[in-house]
This record gives sequence, structure tokens and C-alpha cells, in this order.
Amino acid sequence: MKISALLTSAGINIGLCVLFWSLYSVLRKQPAFVRVYFGRRIAEEHRLLQEAFILERFVPSTGWIVKAIQCTEEEILEAAGLDAVALNKMLVFSIRIFSLAAILCLFGILPLHYFRRNVHHLEIPSEQLHIFTITNVEVKSRWLWVHCVVLYIISGAACILLYIEYRHIARLRLLHLKRATPNPGQFTVLVRGIPKTTIESCSSDIGDFFTKYHASSYLFHQVVYKAGKVQKIMTGAKKACGKLDQSTDTTLDQSCKAITYRCCLCGASSNSFQLLPTDEVVHNIYNEECAAAVVFFRTRYGALVASDLLQTSNPMKWITDLAPEPNDVYWSNIWLPYKQLWIRRIAMLLGSLLFMFLFLLPVTFIQGLSQLDQLHQKLPFLNGMLKNPYMIQIVTGYLPSVILQLFLYTVPPLMMLFSTLEGPTSHSERKKSACCKVLYFLIWNVFFVSLASGTVINQLNSSSSTKDIAVRLASVIPGQTTFFITYVLTSGWASLSSELMQLFGLIWNFIRKYVLRMKEDTTFVPTFPYHTEIPKVMLFILLGFSCSVLAPLILPFLLVYFFLGYVVYRNQLLNVYRMRYDTGGLYWPIAHNAVIFSLVLTQIICFGVFGLKKSPVAAGFTIPLMFFILVFNQYCRTQFLPLFKTFPAQDLIDMDREDERSGRMEHIHHGLRFAYRQFPDTEDIKLKKTLTIGNDEDQDEGRSSGETNGEETCEEQDPRRDLSHPTLK
Amino acid sequence: MKISALLTSAGINIGLCVLFWSLYSVLRKQPAFVRVYFGRRIAEEHRLLQEAFILERFVPSTGWIVKAIQCTEEEILEAAGLDAVALNKMLVFSIRIFSLAAILCLFGILPLHYFRRNVHHLEIPSEQLHIFTITNVEVKSRWLWVHCVVLYIISGAACILLYIEYRHIARLRLLHLKRATPNPGQFTVLVRGIPKTTIESCSSDIGDFFTKYHASSYLFHQVVYKAGKVQKIMTGAKKACGKLDQSTDTTLDQSCKAITYRCCLCGASSNSFQLLPTDEVVHNIYNEECAAAVVFFRTRYGALVASDLLQTSNPMKWITDLAPEPNDVYWSNIWLPYKQLWIRRIAMLLGSLLFMFLFLLPVTFIQGLSQLDQLHQKLPFLNGMLKNPYMIQIVTGYLPSVILQLFLYTVPPLMMLFSTLEGPTSHSERKKSACCKVLYFLIWNVFFVSLASGTVINQLNSSSSTKDIAVRLASVIPGQTTFFITYVLTSGWASLSSELMQLFGLIWNFIRKYVLRMKEDTTFVPTFPYHTEIPKVMLFILLGFSCSVLAPLILPFLLVYFFLGYVVYRNQLLNVYRMRYDTGGLYWPIAHNAVIFSLVLTQIICFGVFGLKKSPVAAGFTIPLMFFILVFNQYCRTQFLPLFKTFPAQDLIDMDREDERSGRMEHIHHGLRFAYRQFPDTEDIKLKKTLTIGNDEDQDEGRSSGETNGEETCEEQDPRRDLSHPTLK
Repeated sequence: MKISALLTSAGINIGLCVLFWSLYSVLRKQPAFVRVYFGRRIAEEHRLLQEAFILERFVPSTGWIVKAIQCTEEEILEAAGLDAVALNKMLVFSIRIFSLAAILCLFGILPLHYFRRNVHHLEIPSEQLHIFTITNVEVKSRWLWVHCVVLYIISGAACILLYIEYRHIARLRLLHLKRATPNPGQFTVLVRGIPKTTIESCSSDIGDFFTKYHASSYLFHQVVYKAGKVQKIMTGAKKACGKLDQSTDTTLDQSCKAITYRCCLCGASSNSFQLLPTDEVVHNIYNEECAAAVVFFRTRYGALVASDLLQTSNPMKWITDLAPEPNDVYWSNIWLPYKQLWIRRIAMLLGSLLFMFLFLLPVTFIQGLSQLDQLHQKLPFLNGMLKNPYMIQIVTGYLPSVILQLFLYTVPPLMMLFSTLEGPTSHSERKKSACCKVLYFLIWNVFFVSLASGTVINQLNSSSSTKDIAVRLASVIPGQTTFFITYVLTSGWASLSSELMQLFGLIWNFIRKYVLRMKEDTTFVPTFPYHTEIPKVMLFILLGFSCSVLAPLILPFLLVYFFLGYVVYRNQLLNVYRMRYDTGGLYWPIAHNAVIFSLVLTQIICFGVFGLKKSPVAAGFTIPLMFFILVFNQYCRTQFLPLFKTFPAQDLIDMDREDERSGRMEHIHHGLRFAYRQFPDTEDIKLKKTLTIGNDEDQDEGRSSGETNGEETCEEQDPRRDLSHPTLK
Repeated sequence: MKISALLTSAGINIGLCVLFWSLYSVLRKQPAFVRVYFGRRIAEEHRLLQEAFILERFVPSTGWIVKAIQCTEEEILEAAGLDAVALNKMLVFSIRIFSLAAILCLFGILPLHYFRRNVHHLEIPSEQLHIFTITNVEVKSRWLWVHCVVLYIISGAACILLYIEYRHIARLRLLHLKRATPNPGQFTVLVRGIPKTTIESCSSDIGDFFTKYHASSYLFHQVVYKAGKVQKIMTGAKKACGKLDQSTDTTLDQSCKAITYRCCLCGASSNSFQLLPTDEVVHNIYNEECAAAVVFFRTRYGALVASDLLQTSNPMKWITDLAPEPNDVYWSNIWLPYKQLWIRRIAMLLGSLLFMFLFLLPVTFIQGLSQLDQLHQKLPFLNGMLKNPYMIQIVTGYLPSVILQLFLYTVPPLMMLFSTLEGPTSHSERKKSACCKVLYFLIWNVFFVSLASGTVINQLNSSSSTKDIAVRLASVIPGQTTFFITYVLTSGWASLSSELMQLFGLIWNFIRKYVLRMKEDTTFVPTFPYHTEIPKVMLFILLGFSCSVLAPLILPFLLVYFFLGYVVYRNQLLNVYRMRYDTGGLYWPIAHNAVIFSLVLTQIICFGVFGLKKSPVAAGFTIPLMFFILVFNQYCRTQFLPLFKTFPAQDLIDMDREDERSGRMEHIHHGLRFAYRQFPDTEDIKLKKTLTIGNDEDQDEGRSSGETNGEETCEEQDPRRDLSHPTLK
């Protein structure tokens, strides 16, 4: 590909970006789209927006960019949680390291590539792209030590930055743990694999077990039922109720307030329903099977101890884990039989692997498109069209990555489905698992397969060799830079702009409002799609490292991407998405590993390239670098990783003592009773039944506060449902 | 190689075996060698042996074989611990599965190979060996389904047997945990990574930390000092004392009794020494650095909880692990700085990998010897000798594996050294780690490299291919059967016989007694070398599985090996080796993984062979089998592995309550005070100093019983030093 083709591609994308960003800065000021662009703020800050018409509303502005850049880490932490900070830190890390890399590579290496060989230079726009890559350095060049030194500097700087960020996130995680609002999840243990008995004895079994073996800290427990058919009816009824609810919800600021209509099934605390339930009715409603239980402890330390130990000599019975936070619980997975989980995990692993390899087919085909002669041969009907040189530039430079992009849109939902079927007990765990799957998928299918299919498409049958994988990668990378750059342009820039615009949200909002004539959905505020965005960022980091020394032309494009990403993601986190659950920074170790992998891969590729260029000294010097990176990784693992796997006992004990000293513990214990609700709308009926194990004097109180709870709406997973907060203030 | 050459080799080995076994059955009855052959029984059962001369002593007998076979699992468990039972179970598993395999393969597959092709059969002794392997089956044979079915039956049976044995060992491990004698290790936590302060404040720091965060279960602690130069002097003095000791030890049965002479440094409780030490002296003796501590808890559960948790927010400080049993502690590693360990582990990993690859050189050379033309070419001076056909048979059939055998003798000590430098805190952990290293080493250097170098020696420079590793392995295996069979004969049969004979022990005993004129070393009784024997057994299992279907002729030789091993190891465990420490069956998961690896590798090889024979159906059928084996492995991991990693809380709590109820707890706590002794001989001096943190009322008692302890000898690691036993009876 020529420079001019690249510029065409860049031009299209810059145009799109400018268009989208301007559109966004106008649309965000229209009250009609306020739910699309300020979902979080409306839901959490209950802000009013004036409807007055002013001209300013229709003029593109940049104030929001400044706001997004200026907001502090504390603001992000408060508004969007630790995961958002981790994402933010990934972008900061990328900007820092690739700024350094860009300076070194563009001023140190690029001239070396361009002026090295005594070739006749054309005008720059007609220059082939590979003239800027390492292919242009002759064999046995004495200048390869520059590449080696730059590689050392980049790797070293990356390690230092990684270490600083890891330490920072670990520290934030500890602070997050100790933050002011007590988190019911810290007092709660999720018990699965309870030996099968009848439903009555099951509950008492749980009580007996924990009073026997965790007497000093056990408080009470709550059985999780296997939801049967009736729950489906309930859900249907709830939806109906939701519609009733909406029909009364006319003004914007009235949302999330008490509703006046209430159906008898989900208006849980109405007296008409209180009369109905007897034990029999409850039995009929919940297709009884005592599948799991949530067990509450007096102290955080007690819960930690109970969750950490192997309870009995049968490792499939009485499985205890720290419970997810109430909003984070994925109820429909909790009652899955524990002994099924391992086989589910294997099946889903196989499923994702299969999908990854089947996906090869479209990708291989698409990569073929970037080779014009292949295209002529395979799609002869295009021959007429492909006579126009401008069309050729679009087809070879731009089309492949657009098509790939469209295919890639199917990946995250599918991976999310796989992760759901694996049986995680919390939303955050599900998203984290999907994030890993998407990451592996992207690295495999975009990076490796693109490399493989891009140049080896004609030799697919030739046996690939173990010995020279490094050499093979090395010979391919510079040639594939074209594809990678266009990928950055389409998948990076354009998809960031569409993220900013919230194209799907906008269209859906439009259809609802003007086609379906439905009322605005006041309740639905999406959570941030970490499982699609983090893998994207990581893929670009991988592209950046692996191309930096060999084909530095990609770096400015990447830097722009990271800058845009920094602005867009901060803006979206603050305005659009809601934090319903948080992993507490668990995405950082994933990102750390991905960066380490990228660094090592880069070094392997450089090793191969230096080998191809017959420079044994430079090649030899990359080996200690690899060793150093792996040792550094091991150091970080020993130093920080344990903090991401469990909580330190010392801090929990200190917090417990502080709460006991200040008398807050009573309040916390009281709040626990209403923290976890499997079927929020009929919970009160069952409260009496399940809470009989704990202290008896608390029981009446518990019930009465259950009744005062009646002003609840039918919204699913309202943040206010986290009842620990009101009671604990 | 012809059958006759194989028979020569077998003949030599059978002759050697008969000779060694007869010799053993005579020698074991000679009082002169009683320490060599009955070390354990003398040390632990204090049996007397009559010196009377009777003719029977010089007639070979077989009674000991019957005894070894007849002894029950309980006897082995009592005499040699759970690890011995695990080893025994590995042999039982091998005998069972390879009996089945031998029946199926010898009667089902061998005739198929031999009679398949319409070749002219020679007389059996002159037949080439490969006529019995799958090479003799023509391409696209319809009979390959027999191989496939046999593979399925063997894999299925192996899984069933593995499951049964794993469950059995897991159950024994639980029983082992609950066995009658209380184990001080269960009450004790080893603390490392204590923040640096001065020596006085260090001890009180430890006390403060545990009284603050584990107040309910903390009992007292004992600081582990970094041993300095003075300890070397101490050791020297101890040796001198040992010699004094020996000079008074005239009769056999008097050994291990009280000594009369005592030197002032190690006769710890003599009054003359009690006067000396002040705090200053202790400071001088121990090159003070508070490196680690042994912390004792009131209950097993308390120790388990303390050992399981991450203590503080710095994962490199206050590291807690359950302490090894007193005899098992590897004192010279305990004071290693915890923050060094991760780098030590990496360095040792690299060291072992390097060694593994450097070892390639001799192995490659040796394998060349089995190809006669190579030999002529490389060692031309042998040409004269190699004209004799009998010599050729010996050289090609026997010599290579003898030389390999000699080289292999250097491996276990070196791996043990690597494992020691890794910094394990217990002898058993060290041995287990060495066992894994030797196992990887053998699988890599004997199995894979033999395969690779055996036939690819001429094509070492051709690039090996990723795609057809299975095919390549498949094409090599049948050809290498010769080498594997001779390896079974030399390394298996012969080394078992030399193990039985205790050649080294015998020679050393002889040199001591008649050359150096030293008194018999009454104290040294070796422990069983699991790190050399288990990898050997596992390697033979791998050979058995991978050759079974393809070259079944190896199976009878292997079966004989496993039978011999069964008799020999049981005999040695009962008579020769002493159980000083025990991992509690932790070798079983290693064995389990090795078997699973062998099964999957076998299936990969079969897949390749069926592919080579152009039988896609048979090849296709092996894939679900691989999948099944991996799922089975995962099942076993979820079902049993947690039991090998930690202890179930329920059982520990039940044991604690039982002990408290019966009043034994007081005795146990008392015994803990003298259970762990870093410098056994001067411990009593320091007793007063270190035990000041616990209950004050126990202190005087502790000191006085320290004084009554004076009858101790200078033996290192005498089993009677486990002071918990006498006090807890």
C-alpha cells in the first residue's frame, strides 16, 4: 500500500471523527437525548435539566472535553468505581509509554529506515509503506544496535510504569476495601453444595453446620431457592407492572420515585398479599430445592475465615466463598448445582475455542482482500470496479478492516453468553470472564491470524515450522503494518466516536420514541462494557509494542487513539454508564499480564528480525531482556497479586474493631437482613420464614422494617435496593 | 535388533537378578550386615539378633519374599508412612493395568502384527524385533480397529483404577490426619517475612502481632535464628562428641541408649553449662537476625486459620504457613529471607532447564551407539572388536542403556541440590520438589530425546515440524522399542536388584569396618529415596502405555519389573529405610498427573500412527478419548486435589473438641514447648529466653522438664527427639 492510500483511509476516519464528535457535542445538549448521554447522572444525581431553547444548544462545543480531562481520579472513583480507575490507568500507561516510544522511534528509527538503502526515493505520497519499516534496512547493517537500544529503553520504561500503576491500583484496592460505607458482601459468605435434604431440614442443616463450626461469628442465614416456572410468571407480571408504572411517569425528574399503581404480585408489601401466604403457598411458588445459601457473619474477619477454608473432607460439599455485593449477585446462576460447574467450565472453554477457530474462515477471507491479485481471482465480478485506482485504494486499505469490524461485533455477546453458562455467581465475575475470553479472541484472531493469513494465504498447506516461528513472525510483521494501521483507524478511532455518539442507544431511543411510540425507559441505565473496551485497548497496546521498533509509522495513529480513548472513556464513565457493580480493580492484573505478554512477544519478534538481518549480537541481546521481563512479572506477582485474590486479615480485623468500638456494628448487622433478596418483590413474605435462625430478638424488628419497605418500585436492580446503605447511614 | 540379541540382553539381566537376589537372601542373614539390611527395624524396634552360627544362614531362601508380599497396608502405613503406601499403590496400579494390557495386547494385537503381512517368517530367534510392532501392519489395514478398541479398553480401565486409588489415598490422608498421636505440626505456624527490628523487639513484635490479631488461639512462639559461624563450631564439637559416644558403644543392642561420656558443649543440661549463658553469650553464639518464628496455637483450627490467611496488606510480610512436623523441618533453610525465595525459585528453574538440555549431548551420543554403522564411522578403533557378532549384539543391545544408566546416576543428587537451593522449609518438600524435577528430566531425556536422537540423528538439522509432531513420534516409537526394552532390563531389573542388595551401603559398610577400621555408625539410617524411585516407576508406566498398543513385546518385561519392584520396595520399606518425615501422600497427585500425561501422549502417538496407516476412522476415534481423559483428570482435580492442599476445617475442629473434652489438650500444649528445636543441644539454655511470651504459669514447668531431658544423646535427628511423643502418651 502506498502512503496515499493510507492517507485516504486516515482522511475518511478523521472526517468521520470530526463529524461524530461535533454531532455529539450538539446532541448532548438536546433534552430529548438526555437519557442517552447522561444516564448515570440522572439515575444517580437526580439532576434537573432545563428545557429552554437557546441557540447555544446547536453549536458544537468543546467544554465537555475539558471537563473530562480535568476531572480527578477521586471523582472517577466515586462515580464509576475502581474498575473505571483501572481502565483510566491503562490509558494513561499507554499514553506515557507510547509517547516515549513515538519520540524514540520516529526520530531515531524512522530516518534510519527511510534513508538507509540507496534507493531512488519517490515523492512521499507515492512511496510504498514498507519503505518506512525495517525491511528497508539491509542485512548485516551496523545500525541494528539502535533498534536494540530502543527496545531496551521501551521495555525498561514499560516495566517501571507498570510497577508504579500496579502499586497504585493495589493501594486503591485496599482503600476501596476500607471505604466508609460498610459493604454487606464483606460480612457474607455464599454457601453452595449443601447436602440434599428436604427444604425444612435444609435450612436447619445450614444453621446447625455453622453454629457448630463457626459458632463465634455466625449470625444467621438465608436460603437461596431454585427458581421454577412460577418465577417466570412473576417476571411477566413484573414487566406488566413496569408498563403500568411507566404510564404514570410523565415528567423527567419524577423518575425513580414512588409509584401509584401497583399490581398485587409485585407490590410486595400491600396488605392484600400479606394475607395470602402460608407455608404451602411459598412451597408452591418456589420450586423448592435448597440449592445454596447466603450466610451472614458477625464480623468481616469471621466471613473471611469461613470463606477461605476447606469446610469438610468432601471438597464438593459446603463450598464457601465470599458473597458478591448485593447488586452484583447473579441470582439465576447461584442455585446451579456446584458439582456441575467444573463440567460447565470445560464445555464453555471448548465452545470458545471452537468459536475462535471457526472465526478463522471470515478473517482469512478478508485478509485475502488486501491482496489485489487474490481479489481479482476470487471475485472476478469486481474486476470492472477495481479498475479505478481510487476504488483500489479504498478496497485494499479500508474495506478489509471494516468487514472484520462488523464480524467482531458478534464476539462480545457470544463470549458473554459463554461466560454466563459457565455459572459465575456475580455480574462482575461474568464480565471479567467475558473480558478475558474476548481478549484471547482478539489477540488470536486479529493479531496472529491476520499475520498468518496475510502473507501465508498461498502457502497454507506448507507445514509451519516450530523452530522458526520467531523468524516467520518477524518476516510477516513489517508487511502487515498496513493492515494494522487501518485497523487502528477503523476499529480504534471510528469505534471510539461511535461509542461517544452512542449510536445504538440513539437509534433505539429514536425508535422507541417515534416509531413504537413508547414512553422513555426511565429505569434502564447500562453499565460500562469493560468486556469489549479493555480487550480493545489491550490489543492496541500489543500492536503498538510489536510494531514500534519495526514499523514505527503506526505509533502516531495509536497515540491519537489513546488520547481520544482517554477523553471519551472518562466522559462516558462520568455521564453515561452506571456503576452497579465493581470488581475492585480485578481488571488490572489482566491488563498487566497482557502488557507483559505483548512485551515478550515483541522481543521474540525482534529476535527473529535481528536474526533475519544476520545480526547475531542484536539478536543475542534480546534474550536477557526477555528473561528480565519474566523475572519482573514474577516479582509483581509475588508482590501485588495476593492482594487481588483475597483480603488482608489485619485490615479487616481493624475495621471490625473500629465498627464495634463506635457502635456501628449493630446497624450493620441489622442492614444485613435486607441486603440480599433473591425475589425482591415477595421477599417480605418469606422474611419471617428464613430469618428464624438468627437472634430471636431481632426478628420482629426485621419484619417491621420489611414492611416499611413497601414504597419500592418494580425496577429491576435499582441501586436503592442496596438496603444496607439507608440503614447504615 | 534381532530377537536373539534381545534374549542375550534378557539373559544377562536375569542372571544378574538371580545372583543378586540369592546373594541378598544370604547376606541379610549375616549379623555383619544387619545394619545395612535392617536399619529401620534396629532403629525403631530395638530388636536383638542372635549371633549363633547355623548353616541355614548360608542357604538362599525365599521366606522374605513371602513376608514382603503378605504384609498388609496397615503395617506399611505404620512402618513407613503414607508416602510408602502411595508408592505401593503406584506399583499395584501398574501391575493391574499392565496385566490387562499384556493380556489384550499379547493375545489380541501381537498375532495381528506377526501374521499380518505375507512375509517369509524366519525362525523366531533370528526374526527382527520390528516384525512384532505395528510397522508390520500394512497401510489401510482393516484390522486397526482392534488397536483402537484395545486403546479404549486400556484407557478406560486406567481411569477407573486411578479413580479408585486416588479416592483411597485421599481417605488414608484424612485418617493420617486424625491418627492417634497428636502432631505438633498441626498446632504450629511457621512465620516468615517478619519486619526487621532488633532481636529483642523482634520477639515481642511477634508476640504483639499474634496477640492482637489471633488473640483467641495464640499460645506462644519461638524465634528462629540465623545460624552463624558458631553453629559450625557446634557441629564440629557434636561430631567429636559422637566419636566419644561411639567408643563407649560396644554391643549392638546397647546402641541408642544413654551415653556416659558427655562433652560440655552438647551435653546440654549439665550444670557446668547452665552457669555460663547470659543474654550476652546467647547473642554471641547466634549471629542474631530474627529471620523467622515458629508460632504455636491453642487449637489445630486456630493454626489452620492463621496459616491460610493473607495477614497484612504487604504480601511479603508476615507470611504464615503450617509448620512442617518437627523431624521434617529443614532448619538451614528456614531463616532464608522470604523475599529472596521467588528469585531463588526462578534461578533454580533455569538451572534445571539448562542441565536438562546440556544432558542432551551424552544421550545423543549414546543413542548413536545403537546404530552400528554410525558406530563404525564415529569410533573406527572399535572396528576390529565389532567383527564378532556376539559383541555386536552386546554393544547394540546392552551397552547404550548401561552408559545412559551411569550418566543418570548423577541426576538425582544434582536435582536434590537444586531443590535445596530453592529454599524449601522441610525435608519432605525438598524431596518432593526433587522428585518432580527428576521426573521431568527422565521423561524429557530418556523418553523424548531417545526417540528424537534414535532415528533423527542423521537429520538433526532438518527443521522439525509443528504440524506433524504426532506423526513423527508415531514413526519413531516402534523403531525405538528395542532401546526401551533394554532400558527396562538394565535400568529396571538390574537397578532393582542393586537396590535390594544395597550395593553402596554394603561397600561403604565394608570400607568402614575393614579398611578404615571405624566403629559401625549406629545412628545413620537412610530415608527412602522417593525422588529417585517414583520417577523411575513413572517413566516405566509411560513406556508401558506408549508402547502397549504399538509394540506389545515390551509388556511382559515391564510386568516382571513391576512385580519385582512390588516385592523389593515393600521389603526395603519394612526393613531398611526409616520414616523420618512424610508428606502425607503428596506424591500421589504427582503420580496421577504423570499417568494422565502418559495416557494422553499414548493417544497422541496412536493418533499419529493411525494417520500414518491411513485409517482416518481409527485416528478420529482417538480424539474423543483424549477429551474424555482430560475431563476425567479435571474431575479428579475438583474431587480430590483440595484435600491434598489443605486440611478440612470440620475434621480439625472435631479433633480439637475431642482433645479438649478428654483433657488431652493440656498435655499437647505442654509437649509443644519442646517440639521444635533449632539447635537441639543448647536449646535448654535458650528455653528460658524464648518462652517468656506464653502463659506464665507454664514456664517453670517447661524449664524443669527441659532439664530432665538430659539423657539425650548427640545423635542427629533421632526419632526419639520428637519430644511430643513421650510427653503426650
